[in-house]
Amino acid sequence: MLSTMKLYNYFRSSASFRVRIALQLKGLNYDYVPVHIAKGEHKKEAYSAVSADLLVPMLETVGERLSQSMAIIEYLDETHPSPPLLPGDALGRAKVRALAQSVACEIHPLNNLRVLKYLVRELKVDEDAKNTWYRHWVREGLEGFERQLMQLPASTYCYGETPTLADCCLVPQIFNAKRFNVNFDGLSRAMAAYEACMALEAFQKAQPSACPDNEP
Amino acid sequence: MLSTMKLYNYFRSSASFRVRIALQLKGLNYDYVPVHIAKGEHKKEAYSAVSADLLVPMLETVGERLSQSMAIIEYLDETHPSPPLLPGDALGRAKVRALAQSVACEIHPLNNLRVLKYLVRELKVDEDAKNTWYRHWVREGLEGFERQLMQLPASTYCYGETPTLADCCLVPQIFNAKRFNVNFDGLSRAMAAYEACMALEAFQKAQPSACPDNEP
Repeated sequence: MLSTMKLYNYFRSSASFRVRIALQLKGLNYDYVPVHIAKGEHKKEAYSAVSADLLVPMLETVGERLSQSMAIIEYLDETHPSPPLLPGDALGRAKVRALAQSVACEIHPLNNLRVLKYLVRELKVDEDAKNTWYRHWVREGLEGFERQLMQLPASTYCYGETPTLADCCLVPQIFNAKRFNVNFDGLSRAMAAYEACMALEAFQKAQPSACPDNEP
Repeated sequence: MLSTMKLYNYFRSSASFRVRIALQLKGLNYDYVPVHIAKGEHKKEAYSAVSADLLVPMLETVGERLSQSMAIIEYLDETHPSPPLLPGDALGRAKVRALAQSVACEIHPLNNLRVLKYLVRELKVDEDAKNTWYRHWVREGLEGFERQLMQLPASTYCYGETPTLADCCLVPQIFNAKRFNVNFDGLSRAMAAYEACMALEAFQKAQPSACPDNEP
């Protein structure tokens, strides 16, 4: 199949990783366009000419440019429904979206590169305090995530027996948190879902080390 | 109509405000259950007995408890489709969700009460630096929001001629940013959408000063 989609992304970006997982789960081909966030390429002219919000990921498809990882994944799910990344009922969708947003609205925004840079450059926070900040929000957020999982029936993935939008968000967050030595004690449901996902080929193919712009 | 929904919320919470707007736009009755976030009531036993993530808003309906404002609004939109808060086509929905997430994932998480408290208590940031932090992320985020609006056809609200999920997120963010004297220069599309929304009865009825727990 000829590739018709183009994903602007960065190997280490947690939000980019979410979309790569969704594309892999759905077996969709795409062109990988690297944008080196750590070098500030997202703020330079080549990218600002195509991106409105100067963030990755951005998906180019059907002549349109879509931003925000969860919006992109919902779009992919609506236009390529199989396999589904959201449950078939409204209540199930609400629960999966809430799990996804617990990561995307409560944890990740506090720990992305531009925020960590602001802490260091503007607030003169030292390395230790920066790492404590990172770990604090990840740990607090994952505890809330775990409590949500505990109210759901037992399942292999976050919600049910197939990966959903919730797993697309959880996996990159845990993956990155491992680099910062976050304490995962007591997060057994979340960690079990993470391990189940990482055993799948789609998640392996989407991970940073499988990206063309990976820096070992 | 007998009220069957219960909204746990806080008058000053921007995320609670989003859901109040959606409920008003759809003409849905609900019981208002105040949770005093500034006094830490969300972390006390009465609330932790019912809430998994210890956050507001939480919607109790059909015997279920739903969290995360955008997930709640999508649920309301699916179960009470009129008037719709998302466009009828996948591309339109992707754009509206991206706008909503630009606020909910890029701006608001950096400026909610627990983060500002952490800056002051843990990082010993002074009042000036705290306010600069607040204004920095709101301004940067709204600039990206405005650039997204500029790529859309002219419209009364964020997207089209009726309020959507994007307006539900934008309005509380601007409303709160006004308290922090954020500079809104050059954000003409966003501000016009804000003003158009605030002229509607639904937004007036949802605003903090109309809440039973409002503190003047």
